[in-house]
Amino acid sequence: MELCLGMIVLCFVFGYGDCRSHRDRSPDDPYSSTVCGYESCPKGTPGQINVHLISHTHDDVGWLKTIDQYYYGAKSDIQIAGVQYILDSVVDALLDDPSRRFIYVETAFFWKWWLQQDDLMHHTVHRLVKEGRLEFISGAWSMNDEAVCHYSSIIENFAWGLRKLNDTFGACGRPKIGWQIDPFGHSREQAALFAMLGFDGLFLGRIDYQDIEKRRKTKTMEMIWEGSDSLGKMSDIFTGILPNVYWPPSTFCFDLLCNDPPIMDDPRLEDYNVVERVATFMEVVNNQSLQYKTDNLIITMGNDFNYQNAHVWFKNLDKLIKYVNAKQTNGSKINLFYSTPSCYLNALHQANASWPTKDDDFFPYASGEHTVWSGYYTSRPALKRMEREASAFLLTCKQIDALAQLGPADQHDVSALRDAVSVAQHHDAVTGTERQHVADDYALRLDRGVKECQETVVDGINRISNVTKPLQFEFCDLLNISICSITENSKEVALVLWNPLSRTLNHYVQLPVVDGDYDITGPGGTKIPFQITPLPKHTLLLPGRLSNATHEILFRAKLPPLGYTAYNLKKLAKGGVSLAGHTSILRKRASGFADDDFVIKNEFLALTFDQSSGSLKYLTNLETNTTISISQTFAYYVGSVGNNTKEPLRASGAYIFRPNCTGAGPDCSRPLEGNGTYEIVKGPLVQEVRQYICAWVSQVIRLHATSKKVHFEWQVGPIPVGDGIGKEIVSRFSTNLKSGTEFFTDSNGRQNIKRRRNFRPSFNLNLTEPISSNFYPVVDRIFIQDETAGSQLTILTDRAQAGSSLLEGQIELMVHRRLLVDDWLGVSEPLNEPGLGEGLVVRGSHHLIFTNIAKSPRRHRLASHDLYWHPALLLLPVSSTTSQADLNRITQSAYSGLSVDLPVNIHILSIEQWKGSSLIVRLEHFFEKDEDPVLSQPAVVNLKDILRDFVITSVREMTLDGNVALTDVHRLQWSKVDQEDYGTLGTDASKIHRIPHDIGTTFTLNPMEIRTFQIEIGPSL
Amino acid sequence: MELCLGMIVLCFVFGYGDCRSHRDRSPDDPYSSTVCGYESCPKGTPGQINVHLISHTHDDVGWLKTIDQYYYGAKSDIQIAGVQYILDSVVDALLDDPSRRFIYVETAFFWKWWLQQDDLMHHTVHRLVKEGRLEFISGAWSMNDEAVCHYSSIIENFAWGLRKLNDTFGACGRPKIGWQIDPFGHSREQAALFAMLGFDGLFLGRIDYQDIEKRRKTKTMEMIWEGSDSLGKMSDIFTGILPNVYWPPSTFCFDLLCNDPPIMDDPRLEDYNVVERVATFMEVVNNQSLQYKTDNLIITMGNDFNYQNAHVWFKNLDKLIKYVNAKQTNGSKINLFYSTPSCYLNALHQANASWPTKDDDFFPYASGEHTVWSGYYTSRPALKRMEREASAFLLTCKQIDALAQLGPADQHDVSALRDAVSVAQHHDAVTGTERQHVADDYALRLDRGVKECQETVVDGINRISNVTKPLQFEFCDLLNISICSITENSKEVALVLWNPLSRTLNHYVQLPVVDGDYDITGPGGTKIPFQITPLPKHTLLLPGRLSNATHEILFRAKLPPLGYTAYNLKKLAKGGVSLAGHTSILRKRASGFADDDFVIKNEFLALTFDQSSGSLKYLTNLETNTTISISQTFAYYVGSVGNNTKEPLRASGAYIFRPNCTGAGPDCSRPLEGNGTYEIVKGPLVQEVRQYICAWVSQVIRLHATSKKVHFEWQVGPIPVGDGIGKEIVSRFSTNLKSGTEFFTDSNGRQNIKRRRNFRPSFNLNLTEPISSNFYPVVDRIFIQDETAGSQLTILTDRAQAGSSLLEGQIELMVHRRLLVDDWLGVSEPLNEPGLGEGLVVRGSHHLIFTNIAKSPRRHRLASHDLYWHPALLLLPVSSTTSQADLNRITQSAYSGLSVDLPVNIHILSIEQWKGSSLIVRLEHFFEKDEDPVLSQPAVVNLKDILRDFVITSVREMTLDGNVALTDVHRLQWSKVDQEDYGTLGTDASKIHRIPHDIGTTFTLNPMEIRTFQIEIGPSL
Repeated sequence: MELCLGMIVLCFVFGYGDCRSHRDRSPDDPYSSTVCGYESCPKGTPGQINVHLISHTHDDVGWLKTIDQYYYGAKSDIQIAGVQYILDSVVDALLDDPSRRFIYVETAFFWKWWLQQDDLMHHTVHRLVKEGRLEFISGAWSMNDEAVCHYSSIIENFAWGLRKLNDTFGACGRPKIGWQIDPFGHSREQAALFAMLGFDGLFLGRIDYQDIEKRRKTKTMEMIWEGSDSLGKMSDIFTGILPNVYWPPSTFCFDLLCNDPPIMDDPRLEDYNVVERVATFMEVVNNQSLQYKTDNLIITMGNDFNYQNAHVWFKNLDKLIKYVNAKQTNGSKINLFYSTPSCYLNALHQANASWPTKDDDFFPYASGEHTVWSGYYTSRPALKRMEREASAFLLTCKQIDALAQLGPADQHDVSALRDAVSVAQHHDAVTGTERQHVADDYALRLDRGVKECQETVVDGINRISNVTKPLQFEFCDLLNISICSITENSKEVALVLWNPLSRTLNHYVQLPVVDGDYDITGPGGTKIPFQITPLPKHTLLLPGRLSNATHEILFRAKLPPLGYTAYNLKKLAKGGVSLAGHTSILRKRASGFADDDFVIKNEFLALTFDQSSGSLKYLTNLETNTTISISQTFAYYVGSVGNNTKEPLRASGAYIFRPNCTGAGPDCSRPLEGNGTYEIVKGPLVQEVRQYICAWVSQVIRLHATSKKVHFEWQVGPIPVGDGIGKEIVSRFSTNLKSGTEFFTDSNGRQNIKRRRNFRPSFNLNLTEPISSNFYPVVDRIFIQDETAGSQLTILTDRAQAGSSLLEGQIELMVHRRLLVDDWLGVSEPLNEPGLGEGLVVRGSHHLIFTNIAKSPRRHRLASHDLYWHPALLLLPVSSTTSQADLNRITQSAYSGLSVDLPVNIHILSIEQWKGSSLIVRLEHFFEKDEDPVLSQPAVVNLKDILRDFVITSVREMTLDGNVALTDVHRLQWSKVDQEDYGTLGTDASKIHRIPHDIGTTFTLNPMEIRTFQIEIGPSL
Repeated sequence: MELCLGMIVLCFVFGYGDCRSHRDRSPDDPYSSTVCGYESCPKGTPGQINVHLISHTHDDVGWLKTIDQYYYGAKSDIQIAGVQYILDSVVDALLDDPSRRFIYVETAFFWKWWLQQDDLMHHTVHRLVKEGRLEFISGAWSMNDEAVCHYSSIIENFAWGLRKLNDTFGACGRPKIGWQIDPFGHSREQAALFAMLGFDGLFLGRIDYQDIEKRRKTKTMEMIWEGSDSLGKMSDIFTGILPNVYWPPSTFCFDLLCNDPPIMDDPRLEDYNVVERVATFMEVVNNQSLQYKTDNLIITMGNDFNYQNAHVWFKNLDKLIKYVNAKQTNGSKINLFYSTPSCYLNALHQANASWPTKDDDFFPYASGEHTVWSGYYTSRPALKRMEREASAFLLTCKQIDALAQLGPADQHDVSALRDAVSVAQHHDAVTGTERQHVADDYALRLDRGVKECQETVVDGINRISNVTKPLQFEFCDLLNISICSITENSKEVALVLWNPLSRTLNHYVQLPVVDGDYDITGPGGTKIPFQITPLPKHTLLLPGRLSNATHEILFRAKLPPLGYTAYNLKKLAKGGVSLAGHTSILRKRASGFADDDFVIKNEFLALTFDQSSGSLKYLTNLETNTTISISQTFAYYVGSVGNNTKEPLRASGAYIFRPNCTGAGPDCSRPLEGNGTYEIVKGPLVQEVRQYICAWVSQVIRLHATSKKVHFEWQVGPIPVGDGIGKEIVSRFSTNLKSGTEFFTDSNGRQNIKRRRNFRPSFNLNLTEPISSNFYPVVDRIFIQDETAGSQLTILTDRAQAGSSLLEGQIELMVHRRLLVDDWLGVSEPLNEPGLGEGLVVRGSHHLIFTNIAKSPRRHRLASHDLYWHPALLLLPVSSTTSQADLNRITQSAYSGLSVDLPVNIHILSIEQWKGSSLIVRLEHFFEKDEDPVLSQPAVVNLKDILRDFVITSVREMTLDGNVALTDVHRLQWSKVDQEDYGTLGTDASKIHRIPHDIGTTFTLNPMEIRTFQIEIGPSL
């Protein structure tokens, strides 16, 4: 009391003004009302150029330093960047002056900070958020890349980040704006996802230099981006290109670490510069107003890890605002004020203008004639694969956690992987554009997260199976290089295979073993046919591989939807009885080889190889009886070395792909020609050709007995650089298909985008880098079509890669890169992954589908899901101490969470425990409109079929992230310059979805639709 | 009211703890009591090692950037350093936690900041100061250098800085501690000055590496420094050597810009380091405790321009304190807390220990075997001279301002020069160790300050003379290179010469003119004898010299103490009648030259030169009839180039003198041998020999008719570096005096210090740099003695220079340096002054005094004053519009402010307008005890004689800076290990002076005493 009375005395002594800053520092002022959102926005002055100054910081969730090093500000020798100080000082600076505003983006960082704050600070921040002075924008856990991220992971990234904000701040903490200011290109699918999040707009920092030049001239810097042909208007999102990436205008960076002059306004001191600074800023404003459509301008005032001492920025901005606005008394029409992107967007909306539209994407991103950012589509291929595996496993883990209704400890485990996966989506994480030690940190986090989720999965299987004492299932994380200590060393192993798909799956299981006799049994003790095959020598010789396994066992499992089947693998005494199939191996030059071509085939496909070289020659679809000539070869580009500087001497590096064509053939690449060493392996379940192309490139071309796709399992590395030459390796499929100049790539693993060689839909391309300008991100698939023949060749990848079709009939995918110089975009470290010392070895898969155009979508979309959401394998070494009763509970009872298979075109994107007793279920229709006569039709799902074991007490449809009820979303409406109803759905653009017209628990999904439901459940039946 | 009620509500809601930080932010809390000073200190815990953590920033008042660039934080490309942000953020951080403390040093910066703050901030800072949370330390305008500063300027620097603090904060703003943490060596005189300021202690950062090594081992890091043999105990000052310069312990720099790890204490994040950090810090503490005497330790937590985001430092220090102190529960005896140097000193004082003593100084400073900081004693000789001129002129200006009782406008002008001079004392200003653009800025400020003070002087002369309309006197600032547009172009010029000394002065005036006939008249129209002489050719050929003058007029003026005499210079028609003397010029090889030596002489001295070379051979004192052989030559050292790195490949540079002796003679230097071109000029008032030694070295050796000293006017430059070799030029006087290994240099222009070649009194010198280790700062004088012959050779300089006696009988002074590589101590710019383009030309004076040892002190001390406080020359071109009546008022009435000449050993160090209607008068006895049988006696002065024209209403004796009454000073008393009464004065060590025993206005001054009086004056008589 005394203290406060002291304050009262002071109010009298100093008057209101003097007490103001004290009032301002009180948390949760009971007299302040909640006025966040558009209502809290500063009002511009009509008739003036209203300049929205955006105070912001761009905090990479790892880049040159790890996320935690950035958070704490450790390793300042690498970069002076400590996010804790940014948030500390921004809050302080906001309290100093209520007109100041700040936006914060990366929830991963915010959350670390928030957990370390005390109650007083929590209340203070609450107030700032409520008053719109601190505004969260985008709000994802990290600012994800758009080229190489899978849509499921982008959704996770937003769901996780937005949930933290929602749980903490409620409606006022809800971002309305996408803020993708640093990613190196922008995907159409991400635009659609932003619309599905219920966002009102999106701001971008980096677009092609030719594109932006045209847009500046034509005042088309701002537009309505049509996110999806299938979804139509509901996927529209207002999109603005920022005037200067996300940086402040030249010479106006006021950060403590910037080199620009502060505002020096004391005439008693030297270097008084107010007159010059004001004039220069007014020139910036006037120039910018020539490029934008309305009287409102946005100017970003921040940069990477700026505002570590926020006061420095704000002190100078205060002065800039004061002195520029003071010019109004002399007739100036420039009006500066602190604002936010949402306030700017709101001002644009109120301007009632019509906006141009866009329906392509922003790939690839070129920032200069020789700086095409298509290298990172492939950079760090092993990390990219690891991220993909972890992301998919997270979905499995969440499913099992939800279906088993596990408790808080397991929730915590799931959160670890949510965190790691969301962090990994950062635009310098999965992109491969971080330093090596940071890449190692991402891998560590993913590994830890996966291991925690593995515990959840084991708990869940035990719970679902009602075992009395949990069985300690384990996992084999190195199956990709045929290592599994359990199958190698155990006499008997119980195998549980969980199928995360919403439909029954036939799946080939491949397990490393030591040579010998084995038996495999399935549910009910039925004997399962299998094949046992020697490992190829490039597996056995893998550097650093520690394993006893010499062979691999292959069998075909049949798994129920959202459920598991158990198998038993037993080592037999010599000559034991099983359904093992016979495997024959032919080696080139060995007896039994004719001089003719040779063939591997099944009932659907036949592949013909050249006897001499072992190279693929022909591919026949036996269903359609179509044969094409096809070759598959490896080649490499030589990375430009540049001159440790920017244009025009840019090097090929982590970001940039810039091949040096000097001395190369007309296609710029150098062939990697094999010496013709190969093996042919044939057995009842699989036939394969093992190509040993050179010491560091090998491949297995594999055709499973029942498969409609060909599996190319390539292995590349260590890429030799002893010659001082950095190399970028591609796998190239060349056919006689008449594909013209067109090819197709996916957008974040979802919709397809048509590409045309040497062409951009939005501007006239000046082709200065003919190779790299034609590479596009391939997250999931790339295909070419021969419309005359009606044929389509599709390649599915197992991770993001750069892909192109540089010649008619050709598809090329970059699989690995090793470069010796940095590309001068900040990393300051060449992309030269050490692997286990000699350089990184990478192994991966391409899956080829060749069929007619009409059938292709159904084939590749289903196959893609099979590959991404592949089953999880739990292993239990069975010993005398294993409780046979509990084991039987699992192995004797295959389980499915679904009462029926869902429609083939519908996928349960996620099912997860959410807030309180609720679940989130995300359903997606994963076909585009008009792709398939049947599967592109709307489909109907009953949630009760999905949640067979639960009592559904209520269903609310939510935004994509699962945090806001659709009924609470009122998106801004925008007019298009060329107003046409281009979509078939969603004529009400004010909602991202229709208000649910469905009743009860039955919902219809239209092509490409994702619907998110928050479901309250009662006690399980 | 409403606001405060809001606070009350919150107090209830959150409890006391939560409201604390709000209370803490209230300015001038009426409930807080004033507890600054020792009473406010944190109490250590008995039985523990109490570690005083000192949060501080070291803010160079110019170095790599100008003072204003540092203030604002401009030019971050040079250095990220903005003092405004330091003070902003420190205040904020102090408010966050009442246990935090901070010291601030440089009042020049603080004052810029203070003037920009609003009333609320003023109150807030007042409270922090009152509570001892923000403590001013040292408090001078800048942290002055100790090697090259004149004592009068050091006093000005402290008076000006401490006055601002005193006027603003009263007693709580009064520093008690000297904080000389960065200057490159420490002078004994400065120690004495600190004692006279009433300070309780002094902390030093940099002492010789061998010295500190010994002190660490012997626990003599802290001592009682006996500042003056003459002053005795009252000049004692407790002096502590800081453990690690002024830096934090290795790896514990928590500044935003440092590279050390922050305290990472969140176990949820990677890199948790609390265990390691605590252990490492405890090791630091334990090691340090082995080197210091008591259970209290001081650890500096700051560095250059640290705390730009103070929060970063404090946040991590908070954690360090918390986690280290937490160890106490496990038995740790280490107790960390925020403290200040004064609190540390107080704790030492309470420890009741006895301390070792020291009575030498800390020069030269060597930081390593090959890093001797004796180069900067000479670096930038032109700036050093400019500073000296400006500093002396400030004293003149203040005298006239005070005597004329000028008003506020003139006070403002005086302040400009106070500011410039005090800034110039900074240890990277007058030292010459700043970047070139910063040196230019200092010169600009000094020039502006001088010009403003010139206006004051003109106003004062007009006021004193009671002219009806002010006469527009002007100044000639380029007389040093014989340029004066007024004397060159006017037919008649009125000259006013102001003598700032307290005694009558005979002074030779030298004015550039065009050839012709002139007349000079003095007071009452008396004709004055003069001599007109052609200018030497090295003056006429000076690069860039724009002047019509071909000749110089010389006459002898007689000036009253503290007053002026006027003269009149008139150009006559050809053949006009005057007392012009005849000048003869003999040029070598011209007729009239015999083969014998030749001589210039007057009644006191004779100089014999070699006919062939024109070199000095013998010097005879005609009074004592003593002749010595003497040569004066120029030579140069080759600067070591090093390897752009530190030890052992250190280069000679702005700080460091490190000659490269390879290829040189045994004395390491290279002779600059003349070609024997010279002139002999003889006239009635002066005889001189002009030596044209080489294209870039010339000299005039000059003997005035009535002078007892020889004037060597050297001119050096541009130093040629076309050979890629940096050169350091010395003037060397070699005699047959038997001076042994000893020589003497002054300390800041005041007491003398005996030096011994290859020796240090405090430690055994390991002589790794035999040349530069023997150079000492010469601010004013250097001399050698031949005790057998009873002779002394003294050289007075006109600016600070490096000086030595490397051989018996020799004195050597370094006059100019030009070096091509940086010495790697931060400047990152070679000391390569451009001058007007070709390189800097420097001209200067050495004044040689040769007489017996007994007479020497009287000669050199008086001569030194004559030279430093030389008369100011005002010039008025007389034309038909000049009011003859007003002119007569000045020219007809010589003026003296004194009613009598003061005793010869007493000098009015300053007389200046101070606060309100008061004056400050500083009187000094400028002889050391036992120097002179007569002049080393105490002297008595009556202030009424000094202030003839004023009514003295009260007199208060003050500390040296003039801000605190001596009666309010209670210095801490210290015990010495070896307690002996070594002085003759001041047995009461608790006072810096006795309580005035004098009565009325009459005071006694003892040798070397400076007494400062604040005098209230009534209306003038």
